[in-house]
Amino acid sequence: MPLDVASATIETRYALDTFYLLLTGVLVMFMAAGFAMLESGLVRAKNTAEILTKNITLYAIACIMYMLVGYNLMYPSGEGIIAGIIPHLSFMLGSEQTAESVLNGTASKGYALRADFFFQVVFVATAMSVVSGAVAERMKLWAFLLFAIVMTAFIYPIQGYWKWGAGWLDAIPFLNGASFKDFAGSGIVHLCGATAALAGVLLLGARKGKYGSNGQVNPMPGANLPLATLGTMILWFGWFGFNGGSQLKLSTINDANAIASVIVNTNMAAAGGLVAATLVSRILFGKADLTMILNGALAGLVAITAEPSTPTPSFAVMIGAVGGVLVIFSIVTLDKMRIDDPVGAISVHGVAGIWGLLAVPITNTAAKFSAQFVGIIAIFSWVFITSFIVWFILKLTIGIRMSEEEEYEGADISECGLEAYPEFMHK
Amino acid sequence: MPLDVASATIETRYALDTFYLLLTGVLVMFMAAGFAMLESGLVRAKNTAEILTKNITLYAIACIMYMLVGYNLMYPSGEGIIAGIIPHLSFMLGSEQTAESVLNGTASKGYALRADFFFQVVFVATAMSVVSGAVAERMKLWAFLLFAIVMTAFIYPIQGYWKWGAGWLDAIPFLNGASFKDFAGSGIVHLCGATAALAGVLLLGARKGKYGSNGQVNPMPGANLPLATLGTMILWFGWFGFNGGSQLKLSTINDANAIASVIVNTNMAAAGGLVAATLVSRILFGKADLTMILNGALAGLVAITAEPSTPTPSFAVMIGAVGGVLVIFSIVTLDKMRIDDPVGAISVHGVAGIWGLLAVPITNTAAKFSAQFVGIIAIFSWVFITSFIVWFILKLTIGIRMSEEEEYEGADISECGLEAYPEFMHK
Amino acid sequence: MPLDVASATIETRYALDTFYLLLTGVLVMFMAAGFAMLESGLVRAKNTAEILTKNITLYAIACIMYMLVGYNLMYPSGEGIIAGIIPHLSFMLGSEQTAESVLNGTASKGYALRADFFFQVVFVATAMSVVSGAVAERMKLWAFLLFAIVMTAFIYPIQGYWKWGAGWLDAIPFLNGASFKDFAGSGIVHLCGATAALAGVLLLGARKGKYGSNGQVNPMPGANLPLATLGTMILWFGWFGFNGGSQLKLSTINDANAIASVIVNTNMAAAGGLVAATLVSRILFGKADLTMILNGALAGLVAITAEPSTPTPSFAVMIGAVGGVLVIFSIVTLDKMRIDDPVGAISVHGVAGIWGLLAVPITNTAAKFSAQFVGIIAIFSWVFITSFIVWFILKLTIGIRMSEEEEYEGADISECGLEAYPEFMHK
Repeated sequence: MPLDVASATIETRYALDTFYLLLTGVLVMFMAAGFAMLESGLVRAKNTAEILTKNITLYAIACIMYMLVGYNLMYPSGEGIIAGIIPHLSFMLGSEQTAESVLNGTASKGYALRADFFFQVVFVATAMSVVSGAVAERMKLWAFLLFAIVMTAFIYPIQGYWKWGAGWLDAIPFLNGASFKDFAGSGIVHLCGATAALAGVLLLGARKGKYGSNGQVNPMPGANLPLATLGTMILWFGWFGFNGGSQLKLSTINDANAIASVIVNTNMAAAGGLVAATLVSRILFGKADLTMILNGALAGLVAITAEPSTPTPSFAVMIGAVGGVLVIFSIVTLDKMRIDDPVGAISVHGVAGIWGLLAVPITNTAAKFSAQFVGIIAIFSWVFITSFIVWFILKLTIGIRMSEEEEYEGADISECGLEAYPEFMHK
Repeated sequence: MPLDVASATIETRYALDTFYLLLTGVLVMFMAAGFAMLESGLVRAKNTAEILTKNITLYAIACIMYMLVGYNLMYPSGEGIIAGIIPHLSFMLGSEQTAESVLNGTASKGYALRADFFFQVVFVATAMSVVSGAVAERMKLWAFLLFAIVMTAFIYPIQGYWKWGAGWLDAIPFLNGASFKDFAGSGIVHLCGATAALAGVLLLGARKGKYGSNGQVNPMPGANLPLATLGTMILWFGWFGFNGGSQLKLSTINDANAIASVIVNTNMAAAGGLVAATLVSRILFGKADLTMILNGALAGLVAITAEPSTPTPSFAVMIGAVGGVLVIFSIVTLDKMRIDDPVGAISVHGVAGIWGLLAVPITNTAAKFSAQFVGIIAIFSWVFITSFIVWFILKLTIGIRMSEEEEYEGADISECGLEAYPEFMHK
Repeated sequence: MPLDVASATIETRYALDTFYLLLTGVLVMFMAAGFAMLESGLVRAKNTAEILTKNITLYAIACIMYMLVGYNLMYPSGEGIIAGIIPHLSFMLGSEQTAESVLNGTASKGYALRADFFFQVVFVATAMSVVSGAVAERMKLWAFLLFAIVMTAFIYPIQGYWKWGAGWLDAIPFLNGASFKDFAGSGIVHLCGATAALAGVLLLGARKGKYGSNGQVNPMPGANLPLATLGTMILWFGWFGFNGGSQLKLSTINDANAIASVIVNTNMAAAGGLVAATLVSRILFGKADLTMILNGALAGLVAITAEPSTPTPSFAVMIGAVGGVLVIFSIVTLDKMRIDDPVGAISVHGVAGIWGLLAVPITNTAAKFSAQFVGIIAIFSWVFITSFIVWFILKLTIGIRMSEEEEYEGADISECGLEAYPEFMHK
């Protein structure tokens, strides 16, 4: 059989690009395990099983809701109910494009549509994972899961549509069509999650005993730091998929070079964030506070996510380092404001996310500060207001906060009916 | 140097398909870590080091035995001693196919033969990993390891040969050549493992104190639920390789599309199983029982494994959800029958595996219920009878059950001479 | 648009080879998590947070120092200050090669230069990770991190240059140009790390109470064996990238076959090491000592790393098995010599590394024992002497050993100001 070289070349490229998206998506999926380990390591033992339940269940909810409605909202087939602002609504996934359509050039994408969905769906779960940490140790399980349904079906997809679905943030009308730039989601994923978390935390209040009447902040140390460290390293590992896959195409020299650059910069920014946080922690606290170090690495990762393709590796270290410094001051500041975030999620994903978005124009000449600023305000406003409304409705109806007795006893017993470490605890 | 484009195209495809199998195999290998964490999280602290030892050692044994004899039994070069039923016996791996044979079209496969072996060998280990959980907390280590030798060298490969080695289940003679369908091994891997486990559990008996004289079931909670959750998420992660690699070829548009569909459906079925188990758990027990939730996700994964390529994503959710419901009722029922399976492995891999096999004809028009039924009976009968004989011989000779004193003291001290958590336990 | 098939073929190959290096590099990066879990599982609870801090921080330091100076030392653009022995010094990474240069054949590599850097940088971190385990439970955090700076910037890169940077070990002048063979770094990575560790351990001394006055060795059991097992399995998983990526090119049939062989042999050697260590452990100690079993698997992996492409799979089992036996005797012997290595890193990475290097000529006809011997001596001498000097300077200046009180209280409190498991410990 003579080989049709032209067709074979198209097929191979399509297969390679599909495989690339699937594999990087698989890495991002594993970030769900990273969040689960990070958060379960940073809460107290009595709340561990419940935070694990939240983490793994939110992932499943995100997948189902995004398939049912979110994906279509974010990447609508139609025009949009209000073009660029309110997307067209439809349900489920359509059929895959045929080999014929790919070969004759009429297919819409150069890779499997299912692979595109898969890569997108794991991002939604990441945004939602940010929330669970911030509301840990006092929020009711079922209220949280109901929020997850709304967040992954509507709140996240609509702001995602604004940029990645080619909505108004992709060409801001009142800025002469300037484009908000967010390569892999410092804003659309991380700031979005952190904002929803902030709204929840404000309505929820601090954990009992966290803040004393004289302004003191009482430490509530995490029960299992190896798990927290493992979680951070899994997130770091998965982030290579998160950022590396966001190029969306691999099979040309320029794309391959870009992906290599993205992966190197992602790694360097995490390293920069970690080292900066270590040094600041030493200066401020006199010790190498492991939890701050972990948050420093994560802040570096969040910060570089807005633009990992244009910086040099040394500049990526700097972007990460600034993120690592900011996150420590943010954590301290939030505690002073009595905004209780047990794992530092709002600081890591919100503050470092904003920093990352603002840093884009430094290395990407196509980006503008004004557009970045508009994007930040737009995402924050939309997510904060809608999340606040949803949390508030939940608070008025089923309630969002465990009773004082349940909180004292621990969420594991009250919500899950079991203990995470039944043999290790001092009764 | 002018580029020989036709040759280069063939070489690139071969390399891509080889890399695809190797990487998906690497993901499946990591499932061994998933099983180790899942099982070590669900047993009591005093039996943790021993279950870890079983898990990692069985993986090594599976690799060696399958290389020595199992792979050749499952994919025999010759005709078979009894064609289609008893395979030809030979040893070790042959040599790799040459580049020349690939380029001139005489090679047997479009990817490296070693990659094929690697992808197959990690499946054997998965089947054997199912067994270790079910017999946990009372089976002797060395009896278990001896069983692993027979299982991975003979029991698994022979039933694998029946289907994947083009034996009688691939074209069932008395059903007009209808084919038993099992895409990635709901039957050949998961039901096989669960059946061997069931035979062992029946001969072994329940853990001391598990069942009271008045029919009550005494909970023996797992010592470390973060590890159990991590294990489940590692399995979910690795399952993308398990199912995604089972297409065996990537480099055409149709294959790439199929793999994308397989990966999306695998993820959706796990999500469906998890959510269904969460809801059923809430209804039955009033709480979100994390261990049931984890088993629900795993049941969804097992169920979709028989046919992840033909369902729509929404139907994959349904297949997983039914698996997630079944697994809870199965766990409760087995306990009523005093069949003691500490981690629920028989329910997850056996019951959900059977459901998955029976569901194939719903979406795959080439499948028939009769053939699925024959396949289930064949696998169950073969594995149950041979496993029962091996366990029975072990029971008569070296014994399979630890002494009551050893069981009370814990397997870690008696079998491994150390403790998994020496500093956390209340002495 | 007519497809330029020749260009498309070159682009696809370039993309595939780049992706291959990036993905295998990502797997190697995850080995950092493996080392962190392994070491944190094998130390006592009071030293856990500190060893985690060392592990994750050294990774970040390695990335930054290697980018700043190490990579350029190891793969210098210029001639070398003393050709083949002392490399040329330069800083930071250069620019990426253009698509044009790749298409017209003037590019230096067939994959992205950033991908090459990424794959190399994760190796440096691996070498440094070996050190942290051996000096655990008594070395000062900050002294360790300062050592990491020198090690990853200078000590490692210079000996790496000797072989992989085409220095004198790649064509040994006084052996008629015979080449030291080290496929993926049994010597350059593992022996290097173990040697630096040995120098540190000798200057540091044993942990208080480890060795009794009558020659007895007091066990100091690891606090969390599930983590140690997880760490080992993560390392095994990551090693497929470590060895599999070291072929450096995928896109031809011969390369793909070689990589498949490398991955199979890596897996088989680990299995061989594990089984051998299990049997020896049973014979020597009467039990299945899980920590020895884990070290056996790792020794198998280290041993095969020098040459995973030429052995048959069965011979790979043998190479691993010898490593697994050696490691147990080495651990026992070092304890007799009162060289205190809490996790067995010197035995696993040093002794098994030497064995692996010496075994190369058995299957690789291009290798010579004399050259292997010279390479071992060269790496050991360089790394031991330079490391000893650096450790010694640190000892004289800031000190390398915690005070007796700090050691008694635990490194977590003194160095990190927190506890790894605040709720599980018996106060």
